[in-house]
Amino acid sequence: MKKPIYADNAATTALDIDAFEAMKPYLLSEYGNASQPYFFSRTPKRELKEARATIASCIGAQPDEIFFTSGGTESDNWAIKCFGSPSDVRTIFTSQIEHHAVLNACDHQFGNSKCAVVRLPVDSEGIVSPSVLHDAMIEEVSNRAVVSCETKLVSIMLANNEIGTIEPIKELADVAHKRRAIFHTDAVQAVGHIPIDVQDLGVDLLSASAHKFNGPKGIGFLYVRKGTLLFPYLNGGAQEREMRAGTENVASIVGMAVALKNNCDAIEQNRAHIQKLEKLLIALLDESGMQYSRNGWQNKLPGLLSLSFPGKDAEAILHRMDLMGICISTGAACNSVHTEVSHVLKAINLEDYLAKGTIRISLGKNNTADDVQSLTLALKKILLSE
Amino acid sequence: MKKPIYADNAATTALDIDAFEAMKPYLLSEYGNASQPYFFSRTPKRELKEARATIASCIGAQPDEIFFTSGGTESDNWAIKCFGSPSDVRTIFTSQIEHHAVLNACDHQFGNSKCAVVRLPVDSEGIVSPSVLHDAMIEEVSNRAVVSCETKLVSIMLANNEIGTIEPIKELADVAHKRRAIFHTDAVQAVGHIPIDVQDLGVDLLSASAHKFNGPKGIGFLYVRKGTLLFPYLNGGAQEREMRAGTENVASIVGMAVALKNNCDAIEQNRAHIQKLEKLLIALLDESGMQYSRNGWQNKLPGLLSLSFPGKDAEAILHRMDLMGICISTGAACNSVHTEVSHVLKAINLEDYLAKGTIRISLGKNNTADDVQSLTLALKKILLSE
Repeated sequence: MKKPIYADNAATTALDIDAFEAMKPYLLSEYGNASQPYFFSRTPKRELKEARATIASCIGAQPDEIFFTSGGTESDNWAIKCFGSPSDVRTIFTSQIEHHAVLNACDHQFGNSKCAVVRLPVDSEGIVSPSVLHDAMIEEVSNRAVVSCETKLVSIMLANNEIGTIEPIKELADVAHKRRAIFHTDAVQAVGHIPIDVQDLGVDLLSASAHKFNGPKGIGFLYVRKGTLLFPYLNGGAQEREMRAGTENVASIVGMAVALKNNCDAIEQNRAHIQKLEKLLIALLDESGMQYSRNGWQNKLPGLLSLSFPGKDAEAILHRMDLMGICISTGAACNSVHTEVSHVLKAINLEDYLAKGTIRISLGKNNTADDVQSLTLALKKILLSE
Repeated sequence: MKKPIYADNAATTALDIDAFEAMKPYLLSEYGNASQPYFFSRTPKRELKEARATIASCIGAQPDEIFFTSGGTESDNWAIKCFGSPSDVRTIFTSQIEHHAVLNACDHQFGNSKCAVVRLPVDSEGIVSPSVLHDAMIEEVSNRAVVSCETKLVSIMLANNEIGTIEPIKELADVAHKRRAIFHTDAVQAVGHIPIDVQDLGVDLLSASAHKFNGPKGIGFLYVRKGTLLFPYLNGGAQEREMRAGTENVASIVGMAVALKNNCDAIEQNRAHIQKLEKLLIALLDESGMQYSRNGWQNKLPGLLSLSFPGKDAEAILHRMDLMGICISTGAACNSVHTEVSHVLKAINLEDYLAKGTIRISLGKNNTADDVQSLTLALKKILLSE
């Protein structure tokens, strides 16, 4: 099979080769269970500790604030379902454009009569306004009787996976904290791609997934600020300081740390490279005379372009691009079995004739100017020849 | 570092080299997100399907009854917390010698007032008697008012991880089904080591973990018999037929399938080899004149020996064995931070002077007669020189 032009880096990324090399010993010779006390487990245990420190340093956290999980979905489910105490009356404020790992976890909690969920609207750029959050928090309180044991969580994503919008997390966290709520951000799409400092952002919980930043699939982490009330989601053994049971997946954790460090060390360089490619893509599109509009134009993730071609069929574009060996997307991979218009495009009030013609191109550090040339040439062939 | 004599195969196992080779392409070139519709995802998607079929065939299941998870702990948590419907009144019958992934998940559910947990005792061999289960299920009903929407789960492990006892699952499942309960078995310690057929056993849910049968860490599966009422544990994307969200960990899934197939293809050969080593170990121990007793002597997992040395200190034995480059265990790895006597040894009523001197030796397919010679020689040095 010919190597494809891969422009779907928001769905998943190629594993960093240094990460693969770092994983190998823990898949082969150093297989000891990291929770055993003998010498054979010393190296895996030490590497686990180092990986935790590396990851913490990449986001401005302390090592003991990092908890390893099986990925972004588990991290989100953990934060949403286990904040506060199990017996608390709990309220969640989230947005209409969150990933389904957050939205569906909230729906699950909503089935619990002791938990209410408020979904905040966004503007046409996909921004959750801090004042909208503030008003919703005030209104929620005035709508019901005061209870003694209640905990509130605000969960707003750092960057959206379909349109790339970066949310004003610092301001939102500030509003949340003023109303004594815990603040969680799903940063799955952002970690390793834009600089993140949990101190500066002021978040209490942050979800990440390795395969979105050139790490392996099936591993991720949840940052938990010291003092944040959170109970375990996976019960069992005493791993992860009794907060997340299950034999430690040392190889993948080590791979995740190497991938994150490599991406963070080169974050400005990667951003400059990707933004150059993005500008080239836009210039070529404009030159071609194709009619299109762009969603989430302002403050956004580098390389993530949501483009709407009026009156066109995104599924058909995707299929024809695929035949030319080019990988792009209509939306989130996790929902590719559903073909209806995405909840994100609905939330930004995109009209149907635009929404149905919307594709997502997501460029990564491995893409080249040649990729962009081929990609725009293919789009021209498909859209101008109709 | 000198290669250790590894006799802790119940804690984790060395990755099968074929499994590693099978994983490599999915860690390197074939990194496409298996849920995307384009050509680049076709190979991962196909391999996912094949891995599911392979695993199903190893336990007598249908492919669509296999759901991939992040390991045994997640599988157990899923079964325990999500059987029936969320709104049901739920009762769980389990045993006193389950793994903490089951026991602690039950405790979590117990916090929910709509869920009761009954912990069945075991005999001195660690066996849960079908008649004890039967009586407990009758008594539970007579103890409370009949409710309309109730679901019962019986969760009994297939083989115990500390003493190796194999439970009479077929008979227990029969009792459970006669009282209209769902039957779950934590088969983490047994899969890939003794022949398992879910049809013959009659179980509805079965948990497995790859790293216990020479697969990679961080991956496992839950078998769910068609028609069994179970709701998702991890909410999010539409993966695993909308039952388990999260980007598919294709490399690890493929590795798990290869490891399981290799182990199952050679299951009688491995068992014969391991049982020969076990007999040698016992013969050498008896020859040495050391005083010891064995826990879970009858129907048990091949290679798993729980040995009690009266009046001795297991921690000290473990430490001195470690200095000689030999890996054994005092109990479950997941709880190695706790040094109190294990709940399993308490449940079989082992007296304290025996329990405190109990070690677990777990031989695997890679062990040799030389390993056993060295191991018993070391034990003699430690225990007879005192």
